[in-house]
This record gives sequence, C-alpha cells and structure tokens, in this order.
Amino acid sequence: MSAGLTAIVAGCGALPLTLGRHLAEAGAPFVFAPVDGSGAEAPEGWQTEPFLVERLALFFDRLHQIGATRVVLAGGVTRARLDPERIDPKTAMLLPRVLPALQQGDDALLRAVIGLFEEEGFVVVGAETIAPDLVPAPGLLAGPAPSPQDEKDAARAAELVALIGAADVGQGAVVAQGQCLALETLPGTDAMLRFVAGARRPDTHAARGVFYKAPKPGQERRVDLPAIGPATVEAAARAGLAGIAVEAGGVMVLDRAASVAAAEDAGLFLWVRPA
Amino acid sequence: MSAGLTAIVAGCGALPLTLGRHLAEAGAPFVFAPVDGSGAEAPEGWQTEPFLVERLALFFDRLHQIGATRVVLAGGVTRARLDPERIDPKTAMLLPRVLPALQQGDDALLRAVIGLFEEEGFVVVGAETIAPDLVPAPGLLAGPAPSPQDEKDAARAAELVALIGAADVGQGAVVAQGQCLALETLPGTDAMLRFVAGARRPDTHAARGVFYKAPKPGQERRVDLPAIGPATVEAAARAGLAGIAVEAGGVMVLDRAASVAAAEDAGLFLWVRPA
Repeated sequence: MSAGLTAIVAGCGALPLTLGRHLAEAGAPFVFAPVDGSGAEAPEGWQTEPFLVERLALFFDRLHQIGATRVVLAGGVTRARLDPERIDPKTAMLLPRVLPALQQGDDALLRAVIGLFEEEGFVVVGAETIAPDLVPAPGLLAGPAPSPQDEKDAARAAELVALIGAADVGQGAVVAQGQCLALETLPGTDAMLRFVAGARRPDTHAARGVFYKAPKPGQERRVDLPAIGPATVEAAARAGLAGIAVEAGGVMVLDRAASVAAAEDAGLFLWVRPA
Repeated sequence: MSAGLTAIVAGCGALPLTLGRHLAEAGAPFVFAPVDGSGAEAPEGWQTEPFLVERLALFFDRLHQIGATRVVLAGGVTRARLDPERIDPKTAMLLPRVLPALQQGDDALLRAVIGLFEEEGFVVVGAETIAPDLVPAPGLLAGPAPSPQDEKDAARAAELVALIGAADVGQGAVVAQGQCLALETLPGTDAMLRFVAGARRPDTHAARGVFYKAPKPGQERRVDLPAIGPATVEAAARAGLAGIAVEAGGVMVLDRAASVAAAEDAGLFLWVRPA
C-alpha cells in the first residue's frame, strides 16, 4: 500500500477537482468524497465515497477499509442542519464533540473536524501540499508593474485585511488612493467587487485601486487558503481596479494560466506580494 | 451684542438648517455661511455670508465685522480643488498651514481648520452644543425591545466599528447572528445598507441583524458626529434588519420625530446603546 490513498473531502468549487486531477496525473491513488449537499461531483471513473456529517464514524471506517491514510478538506461548504434520522449510533457518540464546534465560527468547526480525522489516524494536509503550484512564488504574474500609488494602496489594504482577518470578518479589501472602498464580509469577494463596481468614486483622475487578499493571521493552513481565479480577475476589472495583490505564500491562484490570461486581457496586474 | 453671533459654516445636508432653525427659535443671532460648492442654501430671511476656502482670511474679517464670536462647522463637504485665481493675498499667507492638512485625512483637515478659527479668537463648538437634543440619551427610542441575539449582534458590531473607526475607514457595521454582513467604507452608510439589502443571507430563520453606528475612538467632538435620520431607518428596513443601535452620546438623530415614526412604521427598533 506504500504511500497510501488520499481522500479528498470535497466541497463546492474547482479546488477539489483540481486536486483530483493532480493526483490522477501523478498516478497517486485517491478517493473523492463529495460533501452531501455541496453539489460536488466527481468526473466519471473516479473512485468516490459519499461524505455525510451524520455518518462521520462510518466514513472513517470506510476510509480505513479502502486504505486511505491521508485526507485533504477542500472546497466550500455551507453549514447545513443535521438530519437526526440519518445519524448512525457510532457517529452519535462523536456528537458531543462536534456540536460545540458546529455552534462556533467556521475556523473552530474545521479545527474540530481536523482533530477528529487525526485521532482516527489520518494525516490531514492542505491543498498546497498536494499541489504546491497552487500557491505562486512572490513576483508579478501578469500585467503592468504596480505604480508607486498601487504599492501604497496594497500596503494599506494589507493592514486592513490583517485587522478584519484577526476579527474573523473577511480576507479582502479594496483601497484606492489610500481610501478604503470596501472590506470583505460574509457575502464574500464577488459581492464586494460588485459593490465597488457600483460605488461612486471620490476622484477619477487618480489611481484606480487595488484588491488585496490574504489569509487570516494565524489561519490553520490545512484548511483552504483564500483563493482567486479567472472570475476574480474579471470581477476586479469590472470594478475598475488597477490590479490584484495577494499575500505571497498565503493565497491560491486557481487555474493560473486562465487567471494570467484574464489579467493580461484586462490590463490588470496580478501581483504576489511578499508579506 | 451680549453672547455674540453664531456663524454656521454650512456644508450639505439637513444639519446646518436644523441648527439655524434652532437658533432662530431661541432668538439667538446667527449668520449662515454656505460652503462654496456644497449646495447649502439658506431659507429666505436668514443673514448669509459666502464661505470660500480661497478667501478664508476675508471671511474671518467679515465675521469680526458683524460681531460673530462662535462658529459651528456642520454638514458634509467634499474636498474640492483650490482655484488659485480666487485666493486673496491675506489667505495666501495662511496656505502654508492649510495645505499640509488638505493633503491629509478629513480629520486632520478639520482639526487644522478649527485651529485657524480659534487663533482668530472664535469659539468653535459642535452641533450638539447648539442643539443638545440632537444627541439622544440612552434608551429605546422606537420599536420593539432588541432581542438577546440583537443585543449580541450590536455588541459584536460595536467591536468591529471601533476597529475600523480607529483605522479611519468608517463608522458603521451590520451584524446578523454574530456574522458581519457589511462594514462601512468610503461610499458610506446608504451604499452599505443597499449592499446588505442585495446580499444573500446565510440563514433566514434567525435574527435579522443590527446596523450599529458610532463615532471614531477619539473623534474631535466639534466636528459632525455621525448621524442617522429617517432615510437611514428606511434603508435599514429595506435591508431586512431588526433594528438600528447607535452609541449613546456619540451619534446624532436628525429629525427625531420622523426617524421614530419611520422605525415604528417598519417595526424596527431604534436603540441608543450605552457605550
């Protein structure tokens, strides 16, 4: 069984599929476990196992059976209600430990879930352990070099993102000419960029602004790092921004070729900024 | 001339007019000085003087002439460019002190302007010195009592507003069930509440959320305190919120009767929350 099999606990979005493709190309065995209700779906031919919180204990048993040793949690999950009728007796024994987490923030929940996997003997890894090229090295990925004002705007935005990240509010900000146009909150990045696209700008002659993204200070690195992709680049272009800056080492660029192409097309910079 | 005359340096919005009416009702002499370009306009019959930054020194002279001893700066002002042709020689001498402020944030600018008035011997007061009833005492002004969850949401929002206020970003936040839906940024309160009205909500069965407003920590109290009014209440209702909470002693309620009526109509609470 050598390195063992990797289980991808898959929420929505492109990331779980990217990881599956990565493992398939490397010839590494894996199982794709779509989280019930997330809409995640495996391409034909992939080994799959359903993932239900209500049957967590049975899921653990099944993973041991098929020789899984490593687990990655990837993709978005909306917190759903538990269906009492579906809870099996063994999982019921775990509930006293899962429930307090379910009543806390996303971070606490994910830490608790990771803890449960680890106690079962699985190694839990982050997406970038499986696909290191998801997290680009510092430098300019696309577009014109940021202007001195863009650099100042990125620095101001980085300060603000650290502030709201520490307060567990969000992971992004838009700053133009030193003024904060938007801070990311629960509705997320797309909603924030649409807000900026619709907002009156204070002064049109000057710098167009920077969207900055970074993980929370002290974020559990085995949980999805924040990510951008081609759709983010297009939304930033519609918001009239000069470019996107992300914290080096802390943000994934999904579908990098398409993201770079979108930025070049729109004339936006895509800058992996040293933290 | 006894208590002297009050000069209202008037930006846009209802506040300068409210102050004028207040002084008129009290029989106190005043002059209304619309800031050039702000759109402020005095009702017929009020003594007026134009206010241009470019002729600040001449404005001071004129105020002394007419016996003004007290000044209030009220209403919104967008920072405009200076027109060099309009700058008189005496004001030109003040520019070295005004320009650095013009290049800083709004707070620094206003502090500098207040300093100039004070050096000229005027007493600069805040709007609530003239009309103390603008800043309501702690308690419930309108609507149903906040639920325990509403109280928690207001407390969380107060924390976040302190954070972004200290960072000079904004003075408001919307929190529902402990989750931050929006933070106020440059586009302001109305834009933020429209954003919330359009945002997908995480969970519909539960608390609807609270809009909280407070001044910046350490805000210069002689500059307009943040304000809400009937339009804010209507925007909060459209955003589906349970109510509005404001920091006691730190937020003005403009047109209180209409604000209270709008809150009662919409079933929203209007809560002056002890800081």
